[in-house]
Amino acid sequence: MNFKVIILGSGAAIPLLSRNPSAQVVNVKEHLYLLDCAEGTQLQLRRNQVRMQRINHIFISHLHGDHYYGLMGLVTTFHLLGRKESLHVYAHPDLEKIIHLHLDTSKTILQYPLLFHGIDPNENTMIHQDKFVTVTTIPLEHNFPACGFLIREKQAKRNIRKEFLTDKSLSPIDYRRIKNGEDYEDEHGDIHANGDITLPPRKPRAYAYCSDTAYSEAIIPVIRDVDLLYHEATFMENRAADAAAKFHSTARQAALIASKAGVQRLIIGHYSARYKTLDDMLAEAKEVFPDTMLAEDGLSFEL
Amino acid sequence: MNFKVIILGSGAAIPLLSRNPSAQVVNVKEHLYLLDCAEGTQLQLRRNQVRMQRINHIFISHLHGDHYYGLMGLVTTFHLLGRKESLHVYAHPDLEKIIHLHLDTSKTILQYPLLFHGIDPNENTMIHQDKFVTVTTIPLEHNFPACGFLIREKQAKRNIRKEFLTDKSLSPIDYRRIKNGEDYEDEHGDIHANGDITLPPRKPRAYAYCSDTAYSEAIIPVIRDVDLLYHEATFMENRAADAAAKFHSTARQAALIASKAGVQRLIIGHYSARYKTLDDMLAEAKEVFPDTMLAEDGLSFEL
Repeated sequence: MNFKVIILGSGAAIPLLSRNPSAQVVNVKEHLYLLDCAEGTQLQLRRNQVRMQRINHIFISHLHGDHYYGLMGLVTTFHLLGRKESLHVYAHPDLEKIIHLHLDTSKTILQYPLLFHGIDPNENTMIHQDKFVTVTTIPLEHNFPACGFLIREKQAKRNIRKEFLTDKSLSPIDYRRIKNGEDYEDEHGDIHANGDITLPPRKPRAYAYCSDTAYSEAIIPVIRDVDLLYHEATFMENRAADAAAKFHSTARQAALIASKAGVQRLIIGHYSARYKTLDDMLAEAKEVFPDTMLAEDGLSFEL
Repeated sequence: MNFKVIILGSGAAIPLLSRNPSAQVVNVKEHLYLLDCAEGTQLQLRRNQVRMQRINHIFISHLHGDHYYGLMGLVTTFHLLGRKESLHVYAHPDLEKIIHLHLDTSKTILQYPLLFHGIDPNENTMIHQDKFVTVTTIPLEHNFPACGFLIREKQAKRNIRKEFLTDKSLSPIDYRRIKNGEDYEDEHGDIHANGDITLPPRKPRAYAYCSDTAYSEAIIPVIRDVDLLYHEATFMENRAADAAAKFHSTARQAALIASKAGVQRLIIGHYSARYKTLDDMLAEAKEVFPDTMLAEDGLSFEL
């Protein structure tokens, strides 16, 4: 029942050897969701031994190059590796034109269906759901239409108590009904209240990915109480003016949002290339929100 | 008076951790020319400590992604690093539309002039010259309009013999005239024939870059006698049918072209991802053309 986030790129717009630009894989029970896809993402997937063909859904936060310049490479590699499975791409509608211009120019007809879903980054909307998760947009405050993504596990069903199962031979239908919360009538006509024979499922876990954004308390209601928040921290507080001018955040601001939203843990990332080491940045955030961690290329975080 | 080629990517369409896709830097007297620009080129430039802002000319052989998907990242990084110098890009005219769609989508107005030069890959034409080199297209036989590039040093001027210079105080004008091949009349009215007082300059060196192409003897007149030839070798001879079907070459075919064109040395590259080791490929080429070398990411070759 794993739910983990793998950081493929922790840097900002200028790629460094130690920090690729933005991309993350979210693994929910071996179903892989890619958040942003900067240049080099396909090599970062290889480097981190992610089975890339299992990625069926890609979510692009906005159309600055450091968040999508790796998409065409990945789309093309999937094609060359003989992919047949559909690939769903969720992004601002303008990205569809870019994808098609590249494919049309090289006269490439993909061997698999690429299904593009245009999203409105200014709306807080559920844009995807499957058996395992829902994905909801988080409107961000950037100098370009941008949104983050909230990935929330689907509510699991109730767990039938082991001691109740020992001397019963429940039919598959009975089993499903009980897990769905119904009472059970046994062969003697006795009614067993659902609350007596089941345990509640674990609370669904949630991950919020917020990149890139100025400090904005407007996101707090959307990300409240998530288990893990990624919030960009391009600068430190002594460059708060730079951050504001560029619609980015400081480490302290990321921590303030985490604190005010009551999240469990915070990851910061998207560091400006000017920061060679990150200890001070981490310290700045921890002062406000102690459960802060640094994103670094190749790190993974379990929820 | 250096002239060297640095391999940034030696692989074919699918990037591997050990082999990036196509890109090379040609350094002629610290003037840098970039040949192709696959995804990851900007990081490969950093990894090989190339001073990337000195690249003023980029030549794209064709519009398959493994030859140009890194261009937008490099163009954007130049912009973010505050470049002012003009950047010249030479490629099939369709690339200009792609560049502009990316820039327009992100509302980026570059801080430096990007000067696009559309080229006809089917013509053998000089497309660029500066003080140091000429660059000429080499039409290739691929399943997509493609050309290689021939980079030839400009003919240097004659060298004045040291012994003639010892007891003379030549004016700058005299100096230039003699280097340009004129005879010299000294203060006594004596005429010194140019051939007596100068040595001929070194023969201009030339590098030919041929990627991607089927075996094609049509290129031989264009690349004849070059000092160094890069010729793709996507497959080995036992997959000659695959090579032909995909308009690529085998290692043996690359060597045959080198041999028939009378080049000094051959580099092969653009290896299919199926080849984990390259010893057999090198052996196959050397059997036909002993002065063959393997392209590998990060290797440089002096002319």
